[in-house]
Amino acid sequence: MYKGENLSDTVRATGCYSDVVVLRHPEIGSSYEAAYYLDRLNQRIDNPTVAISGGDGIGEHPTQALLDIFTVFDQKKSLDNMTIALVGDLLHGRTVHSLAKLIAYYDAADVRLCLVSPENLRMPADITELVRSHGFKVYETDALQEIIADTDVIYWTRVQEERFADLEVYERIKDRYVMTPQVLAQTKPDAILLHPLPRKHEMGTREDHDIMDLDKRAIYFEQMENGMFVRMALLVKVLRGVYV
Amino acid sequence: MYKGENLSDTVRATGCYSDVVVLRHPEIGSSYEAAYYLDRLNQRIDNPTVAISGGDGIGEHPTQALLDIFTVFDQKKSLDNMTIALVGDLLHGRTVHSLAKLIAYYDAADVRLCLVSPENLRMPADITELVRSHGFKVYETDALQEIIADTDVIYWTRVQEERFADLEVYERIKDRYVMTPQVLAQTKPDAILLHPLPRKHEMGTREDHDIMDLDKRAIYFEQMENGMFVRMALLVKVLRGVYV
Amino acid sequence: MYKGENLSDTVRATGCYSDVVVLRHPEIGSSYEAAYYLDRLNQRIDNPTVAISGGDGIGEHPTQALLDIFTVFDQKKSLDNMTIALVGDLLHGRTVHSLAKLIAYYDAADVRLCLVSPENLRMPADITELVRSHGFKVYETDALQEIIADTDVIYWTRVQEERFADLEVYERIKDRYVMTPQVLAQTKPDAILLHPLPRKHEMGTREDHDIMDLDKRAIYFEQMENGMFVRMALLVKVLRGVYV
Repeated sequence: MYKGENLSDTVRATGCYSDVVVLRHPEIGSSYEAAYYLDRLNQRIDNPTVAISGGDGIGEHPTQALLDIFTVFDQKKSLDNMTIALVGDLLHGRTVHSLAKLIAYYDAADVRLCLVSPENLRMPADITELVRSHGFKVYETDALQEIIADTDVIYWTRVQEERFADLEVYERIKDRYVMTPQVLAQTKPDAILLHPLPRKHEMGTREDHDIMDLDKRAIYFEQMENGMFVRMALLVKVLRGVYV
Repeated sequence: MYKGENLSDTVRATGCYSDVVVLRHPEIGSSYEAAYYLDRLNQRIDNPTVAISGGDGIGEHPTQALLDIFTVFDQKKSLDNMTIALVGDLLHGRTVHSLAKLIAYYDAADVRLCLVSPENLRMPADITELVRSHGFKVYETDALQEIIADTDVIYWTRVQEERFADLEVYERIKDRYVMTPQVLAQTKPDAILLHPLPRKHEMGTREDHDIMDLDKRAIYFEQMENGMFVRMALLVKVLRGVYV
Repeated sequence: MYKGENLSDTVRATGCYSDVVVLRHPEIGSSYEAAYYLDRLNQRIDNPTVAISGGDGIGEHPTQALLDIFTVFDQKKSLDNMTIALVGDLLHGRTVHSLAKLIAYYDAADVRLCLVSPENLRMPADITELVRSHGFKVYETDALQEIIADTDVIYWTRVQEERFADLEVYERIKDRYVMTPQVLAQTKPDAILLHPLPRKHEMGTREDHDIMDLDKRAIYFEQMENGMFVRMALLVKVLRGVYV
């Protein structure tokens, strides 16, 4: 788009050459715009094209949510009776937005969703409402200590500098939640720790990494490998009838 | 080439690893230089490599011309009795250079080629001579109004800033021809409007785009999809005997 | 790694998605670090990943050495009785480090390895020791004239500006050894001239290139094509049992 082209034309030009367009874009709603213009294009050309969101700014990241929930099921077999904690910047974190919504749609019993964030970076209310309206318990706090020992699934997130309009806000909260071997040791022996990667200081030092990586609770690399399998499956699904 | 390598070595290094080198390069004649050095290379190595021009500066863009003419045939079945207008910067526009030449080689009756451009951005004389020498009528004008109502194929082009040594010349003529729904409405009901894409202000505003895209005369996305088919066919042709 | 990620995480993230990670990195030892962390990763994920070094700074470049030695065998059928000259910056040149080591491991008779470099850019002593300890004769000199007429294999290298901490040292020696048609004419009629490409002024002018490229002793493009074959073979080898 550097030559002054706009998103709608870029997506259609790509769509003329391809079966699937996966779009990662910094603006909320860009995925919908892409899908709208591909629908229009598909009425004109021979080979229709599918749009997949690869993340739209601080909006959503649905394929990440799919691989996250797949990883939880792969490890825990069910969401029943689970206490799931999402930790960090829950306002700007698109992965946790999509994951919370996806959890809401599961038919699971006695699930408790703990949202741990600074007061000013809480999960958007429309998402917590959605989760509650599906019968899940939602508990919001800024105190990790309140929930760490009882949590089965801990989803750690990065505070991403580029999401903040005001860098002072970023600087004030970037070290608010840091996962270390000491923190991990407080979790249940069969808890699982997820992180969308890449990790930075919110996961401690290089030395902390080397220690935590050997802990069987730390499953972020398994989670990442699952990302490949889940996205492969998604491509098969949307291409079914085309090539597969 | 950023490490100080030259074109002839870059092309040969690429040729050592590949069956086809497609070269887009800002200098006229670069395609010939590439082909010359690949010919020399092919006498030395086991797997010969073919050069395809992907555009050489303001020179030629032959694969674009192939997809353009394919689109015209796909829509009109023949060039006979067609009035074809090329509109815009015909001096620097490499796509229209190659398209005019390609048209010249067709065995078609009663074709009229209308070249609409500012006086100082006319099609190079050697190309108009070539077209005339093959029995086609060529009409040059700077007044779109003279021909718009009688044209069957309208090929609109972008005035590309990067082709102008003198930016003042660019600024003076960049808004000279702008396609809008109002202009499109003046064409024949079965006219077809082509554009090599991407489009900028020479195709009006985003709102203009949204309106024109619904007009069946506007076939630039079909044209773009044809680009994939034609280039696939070209690769099959040059690789025949290698893998295909 | 531009987002502040470190090598160990980047390699593992890539490893989660792939069967082979080929790493080119500016720091010595980076290949070992990559292999170490991939080994750790492989104990956790379903699909193990292999690390291949694509060059680590001024350290080693083992796949280049494999294609170099393959080219020598392809042309000469054996290393027996060969005089092999490595010419240029032998201190920072990673390709010549790996090639010298690889030669050391061959079971060949009467091989003479001539190391031609400025006094302050000699081959590291541990490598010359290794070569000598395997029974090869090693001769070090800064005078190309001493050996040029008796050499069977001439390996020319580029003096790479980016390897020098002190640019004055670079400027003083960058034109120390320049291969030209006149120099090439002094070699044996059946000598072979190798170069890892790309070439710069150490191989003379564009005019020199055009002349030398026609000389059957200049086999650097055959050598480059061999690079593709050798690396294909290497991938087959490490993937055997996976897909092949």
